[in-house]
Amino acid sequence: MKIGIVGGTGDIGEGIALRLSPVFDVIVGSREKDKAQATCRLGTETLKNRGKACSLTGVSNQEAVDGADIIILAIPFKHLAGTLEGLHGFENKIVISPVNPMEKRDYFTFVPPLEGSAALMVKRMLPPTARICSAFNTIAANKWKALDEELSYSVPVCGDDDAAKREVMGIVNSVSKLQAFNAGPLAASCMVEALTPLLLNIARYNKMKDVGIQFL
Amino acid sequence: MKIGIVGGTGDIGEGIALRLSPVFDVIVGSREKDKAQATCRLGTETLKNRGKACSLTGVSNQEAVDGADIIILAIPFKHLAGTLEGLHGFENKIVISPVNPMEKRDYFTFVPPLEGSAALMVKRMLPPTARICSAFNTIAANKWKALDEELSYSVPVCGDDDAAKREVMGIVNSVSKLQAFNAGPLAASCMVEALTPLLLNIARYNKMKDVGIQFL
Repeated sequence: MKIGIVGGTGDIGEGIALRLSPVFDVIVGSREKDKAQATCRLGTETLKNRGKACSLTGVSNQEAVDGADIIILAIPFKHLAGTLEGLHGFENKIVISPVNPMEKRDYFTFVPPLEGSAALMVKRMLPPTARICSAFNTIAANKWKALDEELSYSVPVCGDDDAAKREVMGIVNSVSKLQAFNAGPLAASCMVEALTPLLLNIARYNKMKDVGIQFL
Repeated sequence: MKIGIVGGTGDIGEGIALRLSPVFDVIVGSREKDKAQATCRLGTETLKNRGKACSLTGVSNQEAVDGADIIILAIPFKHLAGTLEGLHGFENKIVISPVNPMEKRDYFTFVPPLEGSAALMVKRMLPPTARICSAFNTIAANKWKALDEELSYSVPVCGDDDAAKREVMGIVNSVSKLQAFNAGPLAASCMVEALTPLLLNIARYNKMKDVGIQFL
């Protein structure tokens, strides 16, 4: 299975690539192909030093969409609309949104777009056959990249296409000790996206770092 | 310290009373004083059978407000405004809102009032000297009442009055294995309240019961 990462050289994207590439063929997309290739060379080296083989290919964001079966949108919310407007070819593909629309005021707060969530905005912008799920919303960039640490977190997954959701939950469960939970239809993503600013507040006000969650 | 529970004979209120009354003086309020007294007799008996002494007094909701230093609003969101309109005397008291404005459609969803959260609606309705915090939002009624089970959950607490928030966090930490986390100002309560419908969806779609959370 080929997984493409749009924004694969960003903080979150790079960490996701490092964690997924020992298991899946990962296509790292970037606005600058050179940067994607450099990220992949470095990532391959990093994983090799840990005795892990991996499959990492650096390309443009459009080539990542074209070459993959499953596409992860590893983009900050403020760049989401602009990035999607410049890309095409999402028909029939599984698209994962880990995007959280939030702002830092005195505290972090959930500021959804008119659609109600980043996931529903992605749905409006992509062709109707794109199979959109939200997942990975609450895993901090630092945790993705801390390859020597297990990720013992729960991951809520939303989506309207049951087969796509099952596939995404399988990917989640293949990473470290992440555990996927079906969190309902795509319209329920707003409650998942609102978790991330809550966790950032918990970290900030309790002097913690990179707080995650477990459902139990 | 005297803790009054408005709606203390409801599902959540009764469970909170059972868990708090071995540690604090608990004043159980109800629209019907008789019902509050019956709940207290039953609760005292239940705790006695477990070898625990407790302090439980059944009164009207107004008497619970009048007699307590700290008041917990254990009311479903749909009855919150109506109940608060009928009560007075909240001046200078600590008021805890565990209320979650949500609806069950095909799935559970967060439906906040115009103020943005139940906690901010409470703030608008009560006198300006009331010291409002949100807490206990995500603990299921069944878990409160399952006295033979430890409650190993994280509890986010929001509020604008730091001294009141510290006191509320102390109460949280005195119950079973609950662990309080400062989740920021009262305006950040919306993200805490949105957690509960998310947890209900997680329970529903993964065939779990009474799902809670831990921050880690």
